[in-house]
Amino acid sequence: MEFKVNSKELEKLLTKIIPAVPTRTPMPILENFLFEIKDGLLTIYATDLEISLKSSINIVTEDNISIVIPAKLLYDVLRSLGDTTVHFDIAGNGKLNLTTDNGQYSLSYLGADEFPEIPSFPEENESDDLAEISINGMDLKEALDKTSFAMSKEEMRPAMMGTLLEFREEGLRFVATDGHRLVNLLNKKIVTGLDNQYIVPEKAISVLQKVLDEKDVKLYMTKTHISFRLSDIELITRLIGQKYPDYKSVIPLENEFDLKLETKELHNAIKRMMLFSTSNTRRVKFSIKENNLEISAEDLDIGASGRENIMCKYSGDAIDIGFNSAYVHDILAHLNEEKEIIFKLHSSTKAVVIVPSVSKENEELMMLIMPVRLNN
Amino acid sequence: MEFKVNSKELEKLLTKIIPAVPTRTPMPILENFLFEIKDGLLTIYATDLEISLKSSINIVTEDNISIVIPAKLLYDVLRSLGDTTVHFDIAGNGKLNLTTDNGQYSLSYLGADEFPEIPSFPEENESDDLAEISINGMDLKEALDKTSFAMSKEEMRPAMMGTLLEFREEGLRFVATDGHRLVNLLNKKIVTGLDNQYIVPEKAISVLQKVLDEKDVKLYMTKTHISFRLSDIELITRLIGQKYPDYKSVIPLENEFDLKLETKELHNAIKRMMLFSTSNTRRVKFSIKENNLEISAEDLDIGASGRENIMCKYSGDAIDIGFNSAYVHDILAHLNEEKEIIFKLHSSTKAVVIVPSVSKENEELMMLIMPVRLNN
Repeated sequence: MEFKVNSKELEKLLTKIIPAVPTRTPMPILENFLFEIKDGLLTIYATDLEISLKSSINIVTEDNISIVIPAKLLYDVLRSLGDTTVHFDIAGNGKLNLTTDNGQYSLSYLGADEFPEIPSFPEENESDDLAEISINGMDLKEALDKTSFAMSKEEMRPAMMGTLLEFREEGLRFVATDGHRLVNLLNKKIVTGLDNQYIVPEKAISVLQKVLDEKDVKLYMTKTHISFRLSDIELITRLIGQKYPDYKSVIPLENEFDLKLETKELHNAIKRMMLFSTSNTRRVKFSIKENNLEISAEDLDIGASGRENIMCKYSGDAIDIGFNSAYVHDILAHLNEEKEIIFKLHSSTKAVVIVPSVSKENEELMMLIMPVRLNN
Repeated sequence: MEFKVNSKELEKLLTKIIPAVPTRTPMPILENFLFEIKDGLLTIYATDLEISLKSSINIVTEDNISIVIPAKLLYDVLRSLGDTTVHFDIAGNGKLNLTTDNGQYSLSYLGADEFPEIPSFPEENESDDLAEISINGMDLKEALDKTSFAMSKEEMRPAMMGTLLEFREEGLRFVATDGHRLVNLLNKKIVTGLDNQYIVPEKAISVLQKVLDEKDVKLYMTKTHISFRLSDIELITRLIGQKYPDYKSVIPLENEFDLKLETKELHNAIKRMMLFSTSNTRRVKFSIKENNLEISAEDLDIGASGRENIMCKYSGDAIDIGFNSAYVHDILAHLNEEKEIIFKLHSSTKAVVIVPSVSKENEELMMLIMPVRLNN
């Protein structure tokens, strides 16, 4: 059977699908695209068994067929072509022949029955527990950009290897934590009437961050899966089927001392301190007293140290407190839109809350960082 | 002792010196800068024992001292500072203290006697075999950019691990080869009266490609070393003390068939063929007949192949000839300034010469590629 597509149009589509193709897998079949041609619609799928991506374009053909094609090779060939018409010929001998004005390229394909089943998503009327909402793509992207960095990478705690999406009366809350730091962002614009929570795994989050744009995205959720339908692509991922830790219990509510400072000034100083906090603990020390913050770090192995004074507003008790400098750096990098931030402190051993000094409308954002021990 | 420098000025200087600092070395002392302060001049050295770089700035101080300082840490600290004055204090206790308006940083230093001797270069009147010339920096850079990619990476043939600089009556010739391909560039503008050849090792070439600019550079050469003096930096490298292979004997002079084609069109097609020439030999086949070139490649392991026709001018005998596609790609990438090129051929087993279809004034450029066997 035969059909034609524009090289750039197909390349654009494959660029969005290929993130689901695993680069290293014990199942080589996953290194393929599934091409499903049905009633003049070419739908392309890729999956790593956790997430799947699919997208479609219309083509002109009479036949229906499903085959699997080496993903990277097809993608690389299309990328290397200029803007041209590519003639696809799916021959009976297991060869897919691509023809352009000057060239002819032949790839081997396999039958679709060798491809694993794509996690199918129930149609709207099929499932009672199906929830459906619509969110602006940029709202979703910004929330994920601010929270997802704090997800855990440790397989020992699978629930924390995802980002929590919590639909509540007051809005949609995003939470991510690895036990050392936590981000908690509430978007009050997204009011859905739902009362439910879902843990979306890291891979799906990182793909979403790449493909989301200002267009609306529809979310369909069951107990086991969530589907993100963008204008031109659908991402389905399994949910992490674990109970998310009770994050609210770790957020201190009575941290009475406010340390207010400029985000960028502190961030630049922390970057310098990271050059000296190179030991395992990567410790940077904050010595806080009235309207003065001194941060310092020391590498005993190479006999090097750094110390800086930073302008701030502070009228609480004098406190010496230690942090992992890389975690402070991460948090500040994700607060870089905020001119000023406030560290809410209580003592050198209690979790510290960091908030923007001025909240955005319809948004509540807080980050939390656990201190590390200062061994004086 | 104490002195002050501007952070950005010193950073700029260190950026040029740090390429000589080895990243992995069995001699940790080489991971330092040598700071030599003498008569109000701060001269900074780095070396990996093969090449050394040095540069100087004026400072205000009464004392003379030489110390060695951790290169990467000092460089990273300076890069992380804004544009500011840095106060250096070399304390007697082995500590170098840097102070800015808001910060204080302390590094450990060692005495200069632990640093290896920098290969010293004879002053002009010290050595009888010293040759001295001046070259425009851009001329030198362009010649190195076009030739150096063909240097060998195989330690078995040390002479070919450098680029040959051959001073002759007709000009300065640059030659690089790894036995599979060869570049031979004659710059006829650089007439020196010298009759000598020098093999400059790869590390020096790659540093030069980064630091050369349009200003003149002075070359001082002895039998064992060459020095490149730029306006603000000096690079000294040992020469490769081997006999360079007789490259002239491998250049065929009677290749009678000219294949003329557009560089960019062939280059794009070769990039596509590389997707299919993935076996060990990376072979791409050129099938040449009257005014037609077909290139093709095949990956038997995955059952994929590609074939393209390319416009050309050719009136010689029909020839089928194979090349390593990566080598063809490299050559074309370094001929990308040339709109049209000519492949000069004789047969499927003889070296092929590639030249621009129009030579630049004062320049003779030729590249050579060995064919690989076609097993039909």
